[in-house]
Amino acid sequence: MFNQITPELMDDLTYRWMHLQAHLKAAGADALVVSSNVNNYYVSGRIFMGHAIIPAEGAPLFCVRRPVGLKGECVREMRKMEQIPELLAEVGIRMPARVLIENDELSYSEWTRLAAVFPGAVSGNGSALLRQCRMVKSPYEVRIMKKTGQRHADVISRFPSVYEPGMTDHEWAVEMYHVMLKAGNLGQFRIAGSTMEAFMGTILAGDNGGACSPYDFALGGAGLNPSLPVGQSNIKMEEGMAVLVDIAGNFYGYITDCSRVFGIGKLAQKAYDAHQVSIDIRAAIMEAGKPGVPAEDLYNLALQMAEKAGFADCFMGAQQKAKFVGHGTGIVINELPILGVRSKDIMAEGMTIALEPKFVIPGTGAVGVEDTLLVTATGMENLTPAPSEIITL
Amino acid sequence: MFNQITPELMDDLTYRWMHLQAHLKAAGADALVVSSNVNNYYVSGRIFMGHAIIPAEGAPLFCVRRPVGLKGECVREMRKMEQIPELLAEVGIRMPARVLIENDELSYSEWTRLAAVFPGAVSGNGSALLRQCRMVKSPYEVRIMKKTGQRHADVISRFPSVYEPGMTDHEWAVEMYHVMLKAGNLGQFRIAGSTMEAFMGTILAGDNGGACSPYDFALGGAGLNPSLPVGQSNIKMEEGMAVLVDIAGNFYGYITDCSRVFGIGKLAQKAYDAHQVSIDIRAAIMEAGKPGVPAEDLYNLALQMAEKAGFADCFMGAQQKAKFVGHGTGIVINELPILGVRSKDIMAEGMTIALEPKFVIPGTGAVGVEDTLLVTATGMENLTPAPSEIITL
Repeated sequence: MFNQITPELMDDLTYRWMHLQAHLKAAGADALVVSSNVNNYYVSGRIFMGHAIIPAEGAPLFCVRRPVGLKGECVREMRKMEQIPELLAEVGIRMPARVLIENDELSYSEWTRLAAVFPGAVSGNGSALLRQCRMVKSPYEVRIMKKTGQRHADVISRFPSVYEPGMTDHEWAVEMYHVMLKAGNLGQFRIAGSTMEAFMGTILAGDNGGACSPYDFALGGAGLNPSLPVGQSNIKMEEGMAVLVDIAGNFYGYITDCSRVFGIGKLAQKAYDAHQVSIDIRAAIMEAGKPGVPAEDLYNLALQMAEKAGFADCFMGAQQKAKFVGHGTGIVINELPILGVRSKDIMAEGMTIALEPKFVIPGTGAVGVEDTLLVTATGMENLTPAPSEIITL
Repeated sequence: MFNQITPELMDDLTYRWMHLQAHLKAAGADALVVSSNVNNYYVSGRIFMGHAIIPAEGAPLFCVRRPVGLKGECVREMRKMEQIPELLAEVGIRMPARVLIENDELSYSEWTRLAAVFPGAVSGNGSALLRQCRMVKSPYEVRIMKKTGQRHADVISRFPSVYEPGMTDHEWAVEMYHVMLKAGNLGQFRIAGSTMEAFMGTILAGDNGGACSPYDFALGGAGLNPSLPVGQSNIKMEEGMAVLVDIAGNFYGYITDCSRVFGIGKLAQKAYDAHQVSIDIRAAIMEAGKPGVPAEDLYNLALQMAEKAGFADCFMGAQQKAKFVGHGTGIVINELPILGVRSKDIMAEGMTIALEPKFVIPGTGAVGVEDTLLVTATGMENLTPAPSEIITL
């Protein structure tokens, strides 16, 4: 592996490779070829430009185009992907007869070029296999997620200190981004899916909480510009508005997701009531979400609780509704499992899940808590333990 | 087109469609199907989730999955891409026999699904055609780029006001990001290529200016974390260090690129000399870069000037050298043309180019100016007219 890696990470990478190799064998494949930044980071502990080749048995090979000078065991310099066969031969790995490559991360052009390096051998979707493995976090990943969640929760407590009456949603957002970056947030908002994007996170004030966006987030917001129509939209924050703040926490390359709601003065009673339902849903899912439980059941539990409380119409959006109440988070903010309609995922120990039961109250705004939760043998643990109540500004 | 669009933008979109249609006819194709955020933004003036279908003749069709409620002429709601044929029929567009889709933006999985909507009809790479068209900016785009460049240059003048002696590179970076965001920068750093990424821009202090990164930027920097190994890396800024600040300007969905150098006290004379060569290269290229000139010639001009001045060894990097001195910029920061080795691009009126002749001086750091330049009939115009000299802090 790359030089100067810690023994802890080295052990963890070995664990991840074994995990991937078990999946590879189950899929009847000889090798997995990784190309994307996110998956290269997963299998090597750092971003590099090039390919990681994980055979179904034995040590992997890392073919590095950039940076120049990256060295280590099983690491070879490479100018272009067409050299992979000769590099495999050099380290004594046989050319795979059945290889998986990343169908969901490689562009069609890149896929075509990489597939030609393994003529006739590409037999399935490596993206799906990697997504399945990454769904359950390794011990090192769990430690980083815990550390990230704690820092994330700590920073959220400082948001009221940079609020000033009369601000727009965006003016406050800029100050919160600043607080986040000063606290060590790397800023990078990694998300899977070629049409998904956002800057650090979103701030939804008042009825903008129900505005529709082109992106597949739980809530939208109109945004500041047609080039990025999501989140805050230069609304003056006024008495009676709920403001939902959803800024991602990425301090070490893993992302925790946590939203909290702030009230500009006193809100309509319905907002407090719906917010309490969100807190209750979180408690119920943390209790029910044990290993072995279908993720869809947890979505249905949330939906039933929202219906029973009389808030079905404003659950997970207004005009445009999300069909999920939670999602895995880790290197990217939208991993598996999906706690949503038609999800086939089953809860397992080591999953880290952003649970976000949210409600849009007309005339007031979006309310509800979002937390990153770790699935343990006995239920879920909250990794982002910031106070849950609506904070009055 | 989408409701509430300005007449100026409507005219401009019509111009872009005509431009695309001319290219489509030249390529012998009947239609172009756009799917990516960036290209949907180019053809419609806003981001939406769905597809724009540009026939070689006649009005386009916009098939919108999200946001809900987006209306306008030639706009249809769509649940899934398999509905495209029926929507085309509704508006009287014949199913194309030769269609281009985005080979470089669609993932292999997305490409396969979209190609099946047009059985046997996908005949070429729509990405390449769109890149060619976007290389030459429309009148509206030029206006936005000018406005962006002016704002960008104005903000740069405020960077020294948030510098404090004893800061690390990242501490200063965070304050400059804050100044940028307060001035209206949207923050979003759009870049083409699945392995390219950065947060807002980079700050390179001292020898970190020569550190190798996995990304294909002109310069690298070690970065703060293995998950994002580019840019500043928590170095204490000390007397004698050059600090190159390269933060993108994205105020309205179009990006200008501009770098300036700051000196912590007095620098080695070689740094001032190399910086002056960069300014001289910019002047020479602004003079020589007329419509019709091959972009590669401009790279060679820069290289020759660097060689003649005795700075060939530190031109465009140290251990890892960039093979270009400039690149188009617009909706994304790395558009065509490329002013580099083996470029086939020819300069044309309306191109907007980030020119960045940079030098890495061992023991001092990176120097050189970067500006966004507009190609006009008589030479180039600087859209980011911030003072060019090294600013002593």
